[in-house]
Amino acid sequence: MKKICLLAFSGGLDTTYCAKYLQDKDYEIHTITVDTGGFSDEELKEIEQKAYDLGSSSHTNAGIVEEFYQKSIKYLIAGNVLKNNSYPLSVSAERMFQAMSIAKHAKKINAKVVAHGSTGAGNDQVRFDMAFQIICPDIEIITPIRDQKLSREAEIAFLKEKGIDIEWKKAQYSINQGIWGTSVGGAETLTSHQNLPEEAWPVKVSEKENKEISITFEKGEPVALNDETLPPTLLIQKLNTLCDSYGIGRDVHVGDTIIGIKGRVGFQASGAITLIKAHEQLEKHTIGKWQIHWKKQLADWYGTLLHDGQYLDPVMRDIESFLDSTQKTVSGKVFITLKPYYFNINGIESEHDLMQTNDGVYGEMNNNWTGEDVKGFTKILANPAKIWFNKNKELLS
Amino acid sequence: MKKICLLAFSGGLDTTYCAKYLQDKDYEIHTITVDTGGFSDEELKEIEQKAYDLGSSSHTNAGIVEEFYQKSIKYLIAGNVLKNNSYPLSVSAERMFQAMSIAKHAKKINAKVVAHGSTGAGNDQVRFDMAFQIICPDIEIITPIRDQKLSREAEIAFLKEKGIDIEWKKAQYSINQGIWGTSVGGAETLTSHQNLPEEAWPVKVSEKENKEISITFEKGEPVALNDETLPPTLLIQKLNTLCDSYGIGRDVHVGDTIIGIKGRVGFQASGAITLIKAHEQLEKHTIGKWQIHWKKQLADWYGTLLHDGQYLDPVMRDIESFLDSTQKTVSGKVFITLKPYYFNINGIESEHDLMQTNDGVYGEMNNNWTGEDVKGFTKILANPAKIWFNKNKELLS
Amino acid sequence: MKKICLLAFSGGLDTTYCAKYLQDKDYEIHTITVDTGGFSDEELKEIEQKAYDLGSSSHTNAGIVEEFYQKSIKYLIAGNVLKNNSYPLSVSAERMFQAMSIAKHAKKINAKVVAHGSTGAGNDQVRFDMAFQIICPDIEIITPIRDQKLSREAEIAFLKEKGIDIEWKKAQYSINQGIWGTSVGGAETLTSHQNLPEEAWPVKVSEKENKEISITFEKGEPVALNDETLPPTLLIQKLNTLCDSYGIGRDVHVGDTIIGIKGRVGFQASGAITLIKAHEQLEKHTIGKWQIHWKKQLADWYGTLLHDGQYLDPVMRDIESFLDSTQKTVSGKVFITLKPYYFNINGIESEHDLMQTNDGVYGEMNNNWTGEDVKGFTKILANPAKIWFNKNKELLS
Amino acid sequence: MKKICLLAFSGGLDTTYCAKYLQDKDYEIHTITVDTGGFSDEELKEIEQKAYDLGSSSHTNAGIVEEFYQKSIKYLIAGNVLKNNSYPLSVSAERMFQAMSIAKHAKKINAKVVAHGSTGAGNDQVRFDMAFQIICPDIEIITPIRDQKLSREAEIAFLKEKGIDIEWKKAQYSINQGIWGTSVGGAETLTSHQNLPEEAWPVKVSEKENKEISITFEKGEPVALNDETLPPTLLIQKLNTLCDSYGIGRDVHVGDTIIGIKGRVGFQASGAITLIKAHEQLEKHTIGKWQIHWKKQLADWYGTLLHDGQYLDPVMRDIESFLDSTQKTVSGKVFITLKPYYFNINGIESEHDLMQTNDGVYGEMNNNWTGEDVKGFTKILANPAKIWFNKNKELLS
Repeated sequence: MKKICLLAFSGGLDTTYCAKYLQDKDYEIHTITVDTGGFSDEELKEIEQKAYDLGSSSHTNAGIVEEFYQKSIKYLIAGNVLKNNSYPLSVSAERMFQAMSIAKHAKKINAKVVAHGSTGAGNDQVRFDMAFQIICPDIEIITPIRDQKLSREAEIAFLKEKGIDIEWKKAQYSINQGIWGTSVGGAETLTSHQNLPEEAWPVKVSEKENKEISITFEKGEPVALNDETLPPTLLIQKLNTLCDSYGIGRDVHVGDTIIGIKGRVGFQASGAITLIKAHEQLEKHTIGKWQIHWKKQLADWYGTLLHDGQYLDPVMRDIESFLDSTQKTVSGKVFITLKPYYFNINGIESEHDLMQTNDGVYGEMNNNWTGEDVKGFTKILANPAKIWFNKNKELLS
Repeated sequence: MKKICLLAFSGGLDTTYCAKYLQDKDYEIHTITVDTGGFSDEELKEIEQKAYDLGSSSHTNAGIVEEFYQKSIKYLIAGNVLKNNSYPLSVSAERMFQAMSIAKHAKKINAKVVAHGSTGAGNDQVRFDMAFQIICPDIEIITPIRDQKLSREAEIAFLKEKGIDIEWKKAQYSINQGIWGTSVGGAETLTSHQNLPEEAWPVKVSEKENKEISITFEKGEPVALNDETLPPTLLIQKLNTLCDSYGIGRDVHVGDTIIGIKGRVGFQASGAITLIKAHEQLEKHTIGKWQIHWKKQLADWYGTLLHDGQYLDPVMRDIESFLDSTQKTVSGKVFITLKPYYFNINGIESEHDLMQTNDGVYGEMNNNWTGEDVKGFTKILANPAKIWFNKNKELLS
Repeated sequence: MKKICLLAFSGGLDTTYCAKYLQDKDYEIHTITVDTGGFSDEELKEIEQKAYDLGSSSHTNAGIVEEFYQKSIKYLIAGNVLKNNSYPLSVSAERMFQAMSIAKHAKKINAKVVAHGSTGAGNDQVRFDMAFQIICPDIEIITPIRDQKLSREAEIAFLKEKGIDIEWKKAQYSINQGIWGTSVGGAETLTSHQNLPEEAWPVKVSEKENKEISITFEKGEPVALNDETLPPTLLIQKLNTLCDSYGIGRDVHVGDTIIGIKGRVGFQASGAITLIKAHEQLEKHTIGKWQIHWKKQLADWYGTLLHDGQYLDPVMRDIESFLDSTQKTVSGKVFITLKPYYFNINGIESEHDLMQTNDGVYGEMNNNWTGEDVKGFTKILANPAKIWFNKNKELLS
Repeated sequence: MKKICLLAFSGGLDTTYCAKYLQDKDYEIHTITVDTGGFSDEELKEIEQKAYDLGSSSHTNAGIVEEFYQKSIKYLIAGNVLKNNSYPLSVSAERMFQAMSIAKHAKKINAKVVAHGSTGAGNDQVRFDMAFQIICPDIEIITPIRDQKLSREAEIAFLKEKGIDIEWKKAQYSINQGIWGTSVGGAETLTSHQNLPEEAWPVKVSEKENKEISITFEKGEPVALNDETLPPTLLIQKLNTLCDSYGIGRDVHVGDTIIGIKGRVGFQASGAITLIKAHEQLEKHTIGKWQIHWKKQLADWYGTLLHDGQYLDPVMRDIESFLDSTQKTVSGKVFITLKPYYFNINGIESEHDLMQTNDGVYGEMNNNWTGEDVKGFTKILANPAKIWFNKNKELLS
């Protein structure tokens, strides 16, 4: 009896090569494609057909967009997570959830081997390996592309030999799509000084007129777009379509890869950026100073571990508990103007708005405290530095 | 002999009232105006004339823009300080330095009293009080406006009685200018949901065409604009003029005031925002992952204490030492495209660029490590979570 | 009809003075004593009698030790909270809970005024004021001792005049007792260089022989002492009695008071220290590296806000959620040897012990990874610094 | 011509095996022993003789105790670094400095290969590999023990064959000595529940009588013991001798190893613990609240990276700058009582003591502020939570 091998399959050149290569090694190949919102139904069907054509014993389309939202996107919004202040972890978060889904499927079908088509150069290999080693430590990991360092040409030649004679187009820009954004790599992103040209972006800018929109949040989660109640995943997809047509949310992320080198990649995450900035503004009105302070630190860490393939570290669940607790009062509506290539957050409306209160208005006098109270406040607040300089007069420059 | 009173004087209604009121109380009034880059020479002369007209025994124009840069702006750039992710502390930082300058002058002229025109509603009163109590604890602080809660009309009536019959125009928007930005308050900023209209902004948008510019940094400090070497303060002022004409850097800050209520204020800080974003991008290429991590936390704290009038807390000097140390390698040129209302950072060029190296390129194979090395890396990296779930199987959902 | 005034009453000189003074001001006095584990039944009865003798319209003994455990001590253990690495917040935490209990009672009896006997020199006044202003902002706060700055002698004279002729003994050491520890102030703690002498401590050291004990934790909470299952509050009290007799947990806390000066106070918190150190050791075996890292930071902050009277800040609830989440696996038994004046944590036993696993033993070879794997791990781990120094050779000293 | 190989040599079984094994591989062997304060002159001579007997072409005794103090211990004291609240990184820090010293020597003698005798089970292999890969990336690393997984018996047999017939005693406890402490491993430390017995500790307890001592610090560095001015390294060695004889500073460290498993090791670091606790107490009197807060966080990170072989990460230099800046006022004398197995910090004396000031005494009234001032302070301080609960009444439990 052949050993069962589960292959993470996208239908592209690398994973097609893996399928044939592993069959040669006498494995019973099963394939899986995990959809986090980046595939259309047609694309999924096409991939499935390809899988069976290649001799897959079973093919699974795992649609996990809802799980991805509940276990990841929800917290990326709650934490306003933007790695290095710009990147919403569009592809990074998605890859980790794909890997975990594959690992669970591998256990389910009693696979002895799990294979992925990552190279030895990027972050994804680490995310796949991490998920597999933690969730299914007894299943062997095989990575033909990483191990063999084959050229594109060699892969095509091998496949031709095996009777797979497809025309493999090499795109000028390498594109990766998911519900939380699209990554774009190209010649420019290998330099440090060039921005991506207009033609690199998969969705063209079609909107010229400003548009007012609103997003409603309920305990930190987006629940309505322009007052239309929607399930969060659908809301995000609608927002992506709308904002993409304005060219919003395009940027180039520069950061530390898991393997310790600096990397640069373009991305468009129009829905993610708009949601995060809207949510952040709502929080400025509805949560406290120290909540904002600690959320920032914890969410930054959360983003880093998620990016680095460490979603399963137990501290991640603790941070999620913290974030959940902070969102109790983050409910209300945010007003936004979309403009070609950028947007403005105009303001918010919330019954939890700490600014609209009878306790005092910034810059206006009020009856809840007096000038005398502030004098006393400042006198006491000045004590530590006053005493310090009294003792260390020479340090007062 | 009359007691010497130093009055922080701007020439506006409140401080004019203070001048007359304090003379009535039989103080010998001396006046001081501290310029952090927000006044033209003409304005300073006008204020001086007003001071002498009101009977000031001496008037001092303290120009501290260079000191303000060396002791504050430099670190706000090094730390990429944006309070609540948007506000460069434009007026907050400036006010603290004005207060410290006044405190030192008060000691110099042997003042027994120091007076400022702050109301009891905002942040500035705390900044002034803090600086005075720490730097000149033996000098009494008098704040007529805060203490008497007078209406505008009552102040005007009092002055008229004293023979000062000026037409005090009440502007629709309250504007405050300095080298690090301009604040704008108005009816809209008292609401939570309205943005400021075009007419609220003091500088109108005159540029329609995109423009490529470059900013060169040397150890974290801006030293050249479009390859023209300039002293930092001059560079910032030129950049302000250029970027203001694009309408860049306008935003509304929502945050916690020192006295514990939420406040909202418009600001335009085009030079500050452009410099900080350019500097931050250069850092992404030239400093390490943990440097970025800790800089963010410390700089955030630095911004909070500076905002809250606690510039003199000794930890501020320690954070400055940290920031200085991180900037050793932050040298290079940043390429930016200015566009109406926004800008793009296109990329950077630096001999310290950690991305342009022979040690490996993100997404490309290299000869410095192998797929085997990454496998080993991931195996070890997975150990903690693997062991954790081995012990706590029920927690793996 | 007289206005109702609720007075926080301890039966001491200051609050006795307050009772009489406020009656003179024509308030209807009600008294309350809040017990967080520091009073015996007899003492409570005595205080009650005194209250009625002074003319209290109603006296309430609020026993909140269970609530204090559930809302505070539990988290102080979970967070291993020791302010400035030594002080378990023995009296600080307790005072805040007393204040909140009083505020709620004041609302319940429709008090118009709430009074406490704090002076203007310490932390307690801030804790009381904070709780009252937040929980019952419409009730006026009166603090006769703080306002009048009376001497001890003046208070006694006033009371004598009112017919209260008690002999008020002035103790050499000021002692404050609660379930989480006892504070001790005296002439020595006003200096910076003297330790408290043996006679200052209320419980004398009676044990000379070492004793082995064990404490069992369940999800971070102490549930058994020497294998005897006990409710946590009872367990703590038993442990206090046992460890006090060894002279364990005595120390002098030096720290920043809320009003910004440095203060020094002796304390004995034998149960608290033993529990925290035992709990911390169990955590070292049962939770992850990043959990330990973030717990420390958050718990430190939690302790600071609790100490500073800010228990009601919303971030405190978020930190509690975080801490709760981390305690899921903190179950097991800790072995301790009590010795005169100190103790040793000998080790732990737990089914969640991450050290006792088949995944590898520190310092021993194993079959889960190879030397090659570690080589690869280190190669990748070295990348950032290697690249850094490659670019910045002059900085390698 | 043979390739030059530098071998880190201790004279023990493993490195003796390496020497012979590498000669067989036709390398020209050079040996180096790096002393961080753990070897006597005699021991160093003995090791040198052994090296030459084994055929070393050159042997170097690198004495780096002074460099180790200046670049590491100084900051471990300034940061009060105790990993997991107990372990002063006694051996961890030392090993990293030995590795760096070896790497520099390897470059100096143009070695093509550098070898160390670490196994694949512990932390040291990572520290050696990290230092070599960063400092001398072009030199090959060879680790015979890790690669071959030989048993003790096999090593002895191989050496016998090569004519090296020494009696290799296997100690019951594995001991590692340095200036910053001694580590002790044994059967007990492989369990989670057993403490080390008296006989495991290399220095026996000889002192029975309490002894008063004082340590004087100057800007955070220890400069005098009992008023005798000493160079810090000598002071530490004297203090070690003194405190070891009291059995002070013995503990068992439990923590996360670099390779991700939990490990447990005994240690005695009597001088380190005494110095750190004395220094920490002095800081409580001489530096500010926020300095203490941030020092703790940064120093904890510093300790973690140092432990994990990442001393060369650039953030470490930034943290050192921060720490240096905080120590400006940390000068004064600390009074300590040594007792068998533990010690008491009695107090401090410093001209920078922020507690001994005319600005106010904790618990005593003063003339620098009034009860009214504190009322105002608390009123303002209560604002955020007051407003919060006003808006979120249902959350006030």
